[in-house]
Amino acid sequence: MIGKELIESGNMKMEWARNHMPVLAIIREKFEKEKPLKGLKVGMALHVEAKTAVLVETLAAGGAQVAISGCNPLSTQDDVAAALDTRENISCFAKYGCCTSEYYEAIDRVLDIEPDITIDDGADLIFKLHKERPEMLPKILGGCEETTTGVHRLHAMEKDGALKMPVIAVNDAMTKYLFDNRYGTGQSAWDGINRTTNLLVAGKNVVVAGYGWCGRGVAMRAAGLGASVIVTEVDPIRALEARMDGYRVMKMSEAAKIGDLFVTATGNRDILTADHFKVMKDGAILANSGHFNVEIDMEALESLAKSTRTARHNIKEYDIGGRRINVIAEGRLVNLAAGDGHPAEVMDMSFANQALCVRYIAENKLSNGVHGVPRELDTYVAKLKLESMGISTDELTSKQECYMSGWECGT
Amino acid sequence: MIGKELIESGNMKMEWARNHMPVLAIIREKFEKEKPLKGLKVGMALHVEAKTAVLVETLAAGGAQVAISGCNPLSTQDDVAAALDTRENISCFAKYGCCTSEYYEAIDRVLDIEPDITIDDGADLIFKLHKERPEMLPKILGGCEETTTGVHRLHAMEKDGALKMPVIAVNDAMTKYLFDNRYGTGQSAWDGINRTTNLLVAGKNVVVAGYGWCGRGVAMRAAGLGASVIVTEVDPIRALEARMDGYRVMKMSEAAKIGDLFVTATGNRDILTADHFKVMKDGAILANSGHFNVEIDMEALESLAKSTRTARHNIKEYDIGGRRINVIAEGRLVNLAAGDGHPAEVMDMSFANQALCVRYIAENKLSNGVHGVPRELDTYVAKLKLESMGISTDELTSKQECYMSGWECGT
Amino acid sequence: MIGKELIESGNMKMEWARNHMPVLAIIREKFEKEKPLKGLKVGMALHVEAKTAVLVETLAAGGAQVAISGCNPLSTQDDVAAALDTRENISCFAKYGCCTSEYYEAIDRVLDIEPDITIDDGADLIFKLHKERPEMLPKILGGCEETTTGVHRLHAMEKDGALKMPVIAVNDAMTKYLFDNRYGTGQSAWDGINRTTNLLVAGKNVVVAGYGWCGRGVAMRAAGLGASVIVTEVDPIRALEARMDGYRVMKMSEAAKIGDLFVTATGNRDILTADHFKVMKDGAILANSGHFNVEIDMEALESLAKSTRTARHNIKEYDIGGRRINVIAEGRLVNLAAGDGHPAEVMDMSFANQALCVRYIAENKLSNGVHGVPRELDTYVAKLKLESMGISTDELTSKQECYMSGWECGT
Amino acid sequence: MIGKELIESGNMKMEWARNHMPVLAIIREKFEKEKPLKGLKVGMALHVEAKTAVLVETLAAGGAQVAISGCNPLSTQDDVAAALDTRENISCFAKYGCCTSEYYEAIDRVLDIEPDITIDDGADLIFKLHKERPEMLPKILGGCEETTTGVHRLHAMEKDGALKMPVIAVNDAMTKYLFDNRYGTGQSAWDGINRTTNLLVAGKNVVVAGYGWCGRGVAMRAAGLGASVIVTEVDPIRALEARMDGYRVMKMSEAAKIGDLFVTATGNRDILTADHFKVMKDGAILANSGHFNVEIDMEALESLAKSTRTARHNIKEYDIGGRRINVIAEGRLVNLAAGDGHPAEVMDMSFANQALCVRYIAENKLSNGVHGVPRELDTYVAKLKLESMGISTDELTSKQECYMSGWECGT
Repeated sequence: MIGKELIESGNMKMEWARNHMPVLAIIREKFEKEKPLKGLKVGMALHVEAKTAVLVETLAAGGAQVAISGCNPLSTQDDVAAALDTRENISCFAKYGCCTSEYYEAIDRVLDIEPDITIDDGADLIFKLHKERPEMLPKILGGCEETTTGVHRLHAMEKDGALKMPVIAVNDAMTKYLFDNRYGTGQSAWDGINRTTNLLVAGKNVVVAGYGWCGRGVAMRAAGLGASVIVTEVDPIRALEARMDGYRVMKMSEAAKIGDLFVTATGNRDILTADHFKVMKDGAILANSGHFNVEIDMEALESLAKSTRTARHNIKEYDIGGRRINVIAEGRLVNLAAGDGHPAEVMDMSFANQALCVRYIAENKLSNGVHGVPRELDTYVAKLKLESMGISTDELTSKQECYMSGWECGT
Repeated sequence: MIGKELIESGNMKMEWARNHMPVLAIIREKFEKEKPLKGLKVGMALHVEAKTAVLVETLAAGGAQVAISGCNPLSTQDDVAAALDTRENISCFAKYGCCTSEYYEAIDRVLDIEPDITIDDGADLIFKLHKERPEMLPKILGGCEETTTGVHRLHAMEKDGALKMPVIAVNDAMTKYLFDNRYGTGQSAWDGINRTTNLLVAGKNVVVAGYGWCGRGVAMRAAGLGASVIVTEVDPIRALEARMDGYRVMKMSEAAKIGDLFVTATGNRDILTADHFKVMKDGAILANSGHFNVEIDMEALESLAKSTRTARHNIKEYDIGGRRINVIAEGRLVNLAAGDGHPAEVMDMSFANQALCVRYIAENKLSNGVHGVPRELDTYVAKLKLESMGISTDELTSKQECYMSGWECGT
Repeated sequence: MIGKELIESGNMKMEWARNHMPVLAIIREKFEKEKPLKGLKVGMALHVEAKTAVLVETLAAGGAQVAISGCNPLSTQDDVAAALDTRENISCFAKYGCCTSEYYEAIDRVLDIEPDITIDDGADLIFKLHKERPEMLPKILGGCEETTTGVHRLHAMEKDGALKMPVIAVNDAMTKYLFDNRYGTGQSAWDGINRTTNLLVAGKNVVVAGYGWCGRGVAMRAAGLGASVIVTEVDPIRALEARMDGYRVMKMSEAAKIGDLFVTATGNRDILTADHFKVMKDGAILANSGHFNVEIDMEALESLAKSTRTARHNIKEYDIGGRRINVIAEGRLVNLAAGDGHPAEVMDMSFANQALCVRYIAENKLSNGVHGVPRELDTYVAKLKLESMGISTDELTSKQECYMSGWECGT
Repeated sequence: MIGKELIESGNMKMEWARNHMPVLAIIREKFEKEKPLKGLKVGMALHVEAKTAVLVETLAAGGAQVAISGCNPLSTQDDVAAALDTRENISCFAKYGCCTSEYYEAIDRVLDIEPDITIDDGADLIFKLHKERPEMLPKILGGCEETTTGVHRLHAMEKDGALKMPVIAVNDAMTKYLFDNRYGTGQSAWDGINRTTNLLVAGKNVVVAGYGWCGRGVAMRAAGLGASVIVTEVDPIRALEARMDGYRVMKMSEAAKIGDLFVTATGNRDILTADHFKVMKDGAILANSGHFNVEIDMEALESLAKSTRTARHNIKEYDIGGRRINVIAEGRLVNLAAGDGHPAEVMDMSFANQALCVRYIAENKLSNGVHGVPRELDTYVAKLKLESMGISTDELTSKQECYMSGWECGT
């Protein structure tokens, strides 16, 4: 596709997403009326696909000038990027399949607008800001971070005394991590894997590394597709939980020998390494569902390989002597690098939190450091979502409120 | 893609499929040695994608000359067709997106080779043979039929005294319908729907029409993806089973009002009709997982529509006044018309049955009519499959055999 | 409890069961009006608990004189037996915990009434009839058999030319085996195990021997309770199905080493033997869900044991040197010997089939041999059940009927 | 049972529990050696059944003098109470079916020993202490609270400035609430319901009130047993989660009309009230799984009832004119009042936390107020549990630790 066709395709995708993001739609309406971001510049580094584009529109509708780059070299959809770039007050610098230097250059272009507020997915933008453009920090009102890995990184910065701006950990909103990390990643990781492999999940030993919210989602859907699930963990409490949920739990050194398909979701590095590759079954399939492509040790795999080839679109086969190992999407996060990312309905909630937090930053003076999402915003998102689904909940009666706040009534 | 590139892409897909069809691989090896189909011509009308191509190769390896057309206008993958057509002793006439006349013309080209044995998926080839080329019938050794709908049609022909050749109902092999119709359709229908819509299944009311083996698979995976499943049925025993499996069961006239996403899997026509479209929610999504595109009344929908447009690749939106109805892949079977069809591992079993049945027809004289798959072939496929998966089962001891055949031992 | 108290307790249980068996209630009403069994004698050997008692009442309401004994030494509930015995035209000879000779004597008492029609659960009554009272056979109109094991035994008799009366395999009604063997056994086996052990199922390796309808139910509910399920099988097709359903499949010799809890459901003998006991974990728990107590080799276990003791009510611990093995209810079918048997709602369907088949035998002359349940009775039971649950199904339109019986319509 | 027989039965139950509580066994061994509670008096009000008795033993083994009463009139098992009372340094005042005045009197007897440390399940003991024996408060080292309801009550006391002693919210240990509240309540509530009703869960509309950890467990197991689950909630975030988990979510006023079986698990009062009873189906079954018997408005039900009777052991039927409503165990927490409480393996973890927290209180000076469980104790329990299950987890490499604490590595 080229030019106009590309833009049309992007616009169509955006409209589809918009129609399935009712919470964000309500917020956009309000933003249009109230222009809470008027005069502000927002710099973003997110996965540039249709749902993100709807968030970008929403911020622009609120009066902001927005610049956006990608947050992963394989997650940009060029048609959406093109469509977005045509919008007023929006500049998009993301490109699919860009090399590392292009990737960071795009972030630089975003920083060039001198943003008042930042939105990150993985904290690359904030990191560059601190590392290379510290002079901008004093005037920044605050930032938002979308994902577990980024929040983790920011906490590490904060602990080191290195974080010089306020950031809201949007990931930690309950209406974000309980839904997007679990139901979103759960479904979309398998969407990516299934469309790429066209293999049967039922009857396979599926090894899920990590039993955080993403790992829980990936494991739950693997079981829902008929797999026999094996979980690996470093945290004993999570390991126990995985076992009680009916999964086998073992060390990766054991799991590596019997797994048919591996999905990493730990947020850590070196989850699958040379030691594991060497004992895997011939034909083993590897996918990563964590933010960065460090969970599968791709370098080690390259070194071990006697030869490599494309085994199927987006699958590279490494022949390490007698056993062939198949890696999906270069070990980059599979739901975006081999699919369309999270379903629109969960991103609706995540990005509603983003939009509300951006407004919150604009309207409140926050101290430097990592902040939680104000509980009232979280609950507000849940309420709007339930309404959009036509679901009613009960209300506490005054007697019940009283009972819950009292303590005198016993057996 | 054009020419050589197309062929290479097809070859790559075929190799991937081949590597994941171990049972068929064992049969192919035997065929190569024993040439059981030497001198025979096989005429086929199947979904022309990679797994089918591996079956075609296998038959050719057995000594047969093979001609193949598609069995559905949207299920052909052109790269596979191109690659297949380059093989010795194989002619492929299938084309993606062909119109109805082209579709039937391709079947004619297959019949032109004057096949000794036929393989059908939906019985279109056998039907044309009886209707337009009855003179060929006497010399035909037999045919194989792949799918429930085709078997159903053949039984109707037999009942009417119209079936003039022997046919093996390959669909009815336990290693076929218990696996491919359930785990295959179950996974691949959702693969098609998810990659096409990028919407969340969790939290949706998913209406599954029909609780046969395909419907069971579709419902099971919908539940596995977090949907609240509603089943509609005409058979009271199946309806009860669906209810005991935890699903809601109701008439379609009720389900139509509350469903978010509909999947038909009945093998019958007029499952979703004008009466239903009129009461559906705005934004309802419709997909068909049955063989023919008659389950959703597309004509009625066209008539009701005030306007239509492409809402997303492979999704057409019908605005019927105040409510928009989205149909995936023109109401054609969604796992093939919006995906890559069944996973390789289940087709391995289905097509192993096909190859063994073709050989059986070649080596045995069958009477006209519909025949079951010989039980020993069925069990043989299961055994090979278990071996390929590294799974061992118990064996009856002689004492146990004796106990099972005896009747004197009581409480 | 004694005397009156016992009878009252039995009556209360019967009323509870009656209230949850709506299909049988409709049949009883009809029987009361039409008296189709007038003048006939029905001899029964079934598990004498509340649901069975409701069937007995129903037959008596139809005009029959009924005599009943137990079909398992541990499955009789004495209060129900006492209550039943007070009813007009009903004699009950069953007793909980009777020894083998008492058990067979009770069957003799039933045969003493010279039944016209028999109902069996395991075929012990029919077997005794053939073995010791062959002179009665010519005047017998027919029998009904309730369970897989009994049907299996009758087929073996028929094959040997030994079956000298007509029997309807009530077990083989779809509204019986698809429901009672699966959902009934599935739930009630775990009810028995859980109330007896008070142990957690989640996180345990549960080994289910046999993947027939009972085994499927037991495995499904084990998974539903959070177990990691292992299935053992001798049939390759069933083994494959278990694997595709997400379970591990292996030989019992392997499973024995890692199982925490074992449930046998094969209908065969010697499923768990000395070889297995010797490799089991210390504390392993064994239960049998099959009809006869031959699945766990209790004799072998007794021989191996250095000492035994009651570890908890209805659990016997065998110390075989370093490892303690716990057997629930002496290895007798756990849902009845350690619980109240199948839930009322599934027995409603099974016993509705029994009542209708008894009437069918009374009104039709059947040839000697094993007969299926007439399809119309089966469907009738399903329809009544759906009505009682307030569930509506769709009806085929005439166009749809026509389509299903036609074969000319293709792609 | 009387006297010696009663004690023997209690001892047998305790041994069974002890054998299935390996974590507590390790702690007991340590306690025996180190006597950390020497010279201290522990006053407890817990459900007196076998698992609790093992905790009591453990504390006594640690050198404490222990007195215990029940924490619910229907949850005491008299045989266990009798066996416990024979032990040195242990006094047990609990009795099954005691009236309210006896219930509180027993708590008084416990307080009579002038405990240094308290353990509560529902906070009744602490409440009485503050209300009637405030003079004891200054010398109390601290208390432990076992359940959500109690913790909730203590927070309310603290908020009101009424809490005059330190309390550890043992319930809030992850190895407690994530396991016992979910897997424990989930299984044992259904154990209690199933053994009491002998009805089929599959195919029923099961309404679960409350989607906290207990409600999640009850809903998960209901689905695992084949129910169609409906959840009611007041919290929008939990309501959304329930929906995404595949359940229907609605107001109780709607659910009341279609539910077959209701389980309350909210910790609040008036969940099922007169308004609901009036619209329920004839035959509806009600159970409570929350701590206090205030969730079902029993008084309102009594008032509405035209007549009542025992429908089955532990089930009371209320005829409110045309519709009969069945309540299990007087609306008291069903897993204990109609069963044996949580499975031993989950109580192993909960009570390991209790024992460790009692020791922690003995060895540390805590300020007045509600304290969390120290994270290291929580993790220690998880580690011991995994070991006892033979499960290994991975360890972070130093490179991984470094990566997790770093923040410089990006895309």
